[in-house]
Amino acid sequence: MSRSINELAAELHEKHGGKLCVGSKIPINSREDLSLAYTPGVAEPCRRIHANPADAYRYTSKGNMVAVVSDGSAVLGLGNIGGLASLPVMEGKAILFKEFAGVDAVPLCLNTQDDDEIIAVVKAVSPTFGGINLEDIAAPRCFTIERRLREAGLGIPVFHDDQHGTAICVLAGLMNASKVVGKPLSGLTAAVNGAGAAGSAIARILLRAGVKDIRLVDMNGTINRGEPDTMLNWNHEELAAITNRDNISGGLAAAVVDADVFIGVSKPGLLTGGMIKTMADRPVIFAMANPTPEIFPDEAKSAGAAVVGTGRSDFPNQINNVLVFPGIFKGALRARAADITDEMKMAAAAALAGYIPEDELTPENILPDALDKNVASVIADAVERAAGEQG
Amino acid sequence: MSRSINELAAELHEKHGGKLCVGSKIPINSREDLSLAYTPGVAEPCRRIHANPADAYRYTSKGNMVAVVSDGSAVLGLGNIGGLASLPVMEGKAILFKEFAGVDAVPLCLNTQDDDEIIAVVKAVSPTFGGINLEDIAAPRCFTIERRLREAGLGIPVFHDDQHGTAICVLAGLMNASKVVGKPLSGLTAAVNGAGAAGSAIARILLRAGVKDIRLVDMNGTINRGEPDTMLNWNHEELAAITNRDNISGGLAAAVVDADVFIGVSKPGLLTGGMIKTMADRPVIFAMANPTPEIFPDEAKSAGAAVVGTGRSDFPNQINNVLVFPGIFKGALRARAADITDEMKMAAAAALAGYIPEDELTPENILPDALDKNVASVIADAVERAAGEQG
Repeated sequence: MSRSINELAAELHEKHGGKLCVGSKIPINSREDLSLAYTPGVAEPCRRIHANPADAYRYTSKGNMVAVVSDGSAVLGLGNIGGLASLPVMEGKAILFKEFAGVDAVPLCLNTQDDDEIIAVVKAVSPTFGGINLEDIAAPRCFTIERRLREAGLGIPVFHDDQHGTAICVLAGLMNASKVVGKPLSGLTAAVNGAGAAGSAIARILLRAGVKDIRLVDMNGTINRGEPDTMLNWNHEELAAITNRDNISGGLAAAVVDADVFIGVSKPGLLTGGMIKTMADRPVIFAMANPTPEIFPDEAKSAGAAVVGTGRSDFPNQINNVLVFPGIFKGALRARAADITDEMKMAAAAALAGYIPEDELTPENILPDALDKNVASVIADAVERAAGEQG
Repeated sequence: MSRSINELAAELHEKHGGKLCVGSKIPINSREDLSLAYTPGVAEPCRRIHANPADAYRYTSKGNMVAVVSDGSAVLGLGNIGGLASLPVMEGKAILFKEFAGVDAVPLCLNTQDDDEIIAVVKAVSPTFGGINLEDIAAPRCFTIERRLREAGLGIPVFHDDQHGTAICVLAGLMNASKVVGKPLSGLTAAVNGAGAAGSAIARILLRAGVKDIRLVDMNGTINRGEPDTMLNWNHEELAAITNRDNISGGLAAAVVDADVFIGVSKPGLLTGGMIKTMADRPVIFAMANPTPEIFPDEAKSAGAAVVGTGRSDFPNQINNVLVFPGIFKGALRARAADITDEMKMAAAAALAGYIPEDELTPENILPDALDKNVASVIADAVERAAGEQG
């Protein structure tokens, strides 16, 4: 089956010569068309923008145009394949922006993996775009690059989707799962397996949302304070200070004991039924490794899991950031926001969770269908409102 | 009237929120769509490109995607308005690529005018594109940037349209005008007024095509050898060595004496009927300053001009590089050319000139209508063939 999907996918990509095309909003069939859309008429919007830079949002496509920027250093399950080979993913992201939110997006796949160069490129091209979606850049470089770009004052939002899109989706899912299992967020302890881009952002947003404690586990064990032999990068040092209240050590098996929630953004098969049995009552399991989850839903349920989500579309509760990034950018673009703030992210999570009416919440229904194209506009409204409230 | 065009153009740009949009070649409506166009299926084309970089042309939009790159330092008649304010022009260029040749193009308007930074940006984004169209970059920086990028071995063509698109169009027009007036190209002396991007490239291509002599005039007079008080940049030094056989000095009035051809890429009204009367018999006048030509056709004809072309659509013989750039890129992309060579440029000029059957050539009909969308495919065929012959 896997081979078949691969073959079909390759055929589909070849058939169309990729997935993305460009279109003109204005047909050019007459001299008048040409004189208004191009020379000499085009000089007038240029003059107005030159006099008032904000007019770029009136007279150009900037306000609805996003660049999907990647160096291809951490692609899907493929790892560091470089910018060129990451192009199919970035084109895919671009068409999802369009199909789900009407946002125009173009890939910019780079042949550099140097932080300074990537930052310089994004700064240089920023006049063209209303927002920058960073994608598939390896941790911890992704944190540095995003932070420096957000601090650069480009006037447009810079958003690393692998971090925040995933984190927002997980938070929304957990808000609803906590209702299903009857435990308030503020009482939850969650073990997060995987401490890269997604895991780090999940830890941060859950803590911000009031989750009681996070235990963040990577291949070296649970991130904690005071283990001098652990190789901690600055991101892990930051996280060590705010997670792991009990300062436990050891691997995943130790981290899940008495935890209410398991969140996996790691590798297939890492969670066992036996581990679930050591968790608190009615545990919530988000096993998001793709395409093979950390544990399959049937096995998790047999071991006592009350709610199970995965990254897959063939099981209930798919946790897929396509639910988030189209709407969050659409809202930020409509607000002409200069940044996607924590408040906007929280608003997106609340809107996504609230998309499912409370009386329809079940263990198998904590998030909308990933193909539900109404989600993006609901999130966009919430994000635009949050941006407006911040000025 | 000019105000009216300006108002209409501003309205048109505002109505649509710019001119450019992005589209998906593949609708995403089902789980299968998503699994083939995005995860998990997208991994397969990524793997294939990683194994064989040339497969990017098979599985992505790269092979039909052009970046229109500008720093906004020399826009139309607007001068140095910067990247952001140049966006309407670059969007316009992008939609012309699409409307005239089916080539997908996106603007990249930069907020830097530093050569090294511009070069670094283009290098970095080059995996995404099948070609780079440099646009509205001031001379002599445009020459340096284009040359360095062509030498950088990006594997895709880099083409500064203000130079070569204009030059190819002028050469095509002159090939046909020379037939109309019954003088072979090899006997022609042409005075070119304006020694920036367009004028320099026109001089070079006409010499390559066998024109006898060029006199290149700028605001400091005719470029010549041995005038130490003239501020010559390196581009002008190069041109001084290959133009102006008689090493004349003085301004335009001196340069046009006995010349067969006047080519203006300069400012309104610089050429007088009196100057035309000093030219050789049956002179050819290309007065391309926009929107007001160096001399209007009626006045030029009264003074004896045999053929007159301008940049305007409301007079015969419009010399407009929209006749050239869509087709030349389409041909280069189809050939997967790594460069647009002199041979490809000459082939484009010959194809454009040959588009008008010899028995239809008249003083009022030396170039096809700028809106004739069949031109691009004829040029593309010729360019693709020329690329193929060079391997």
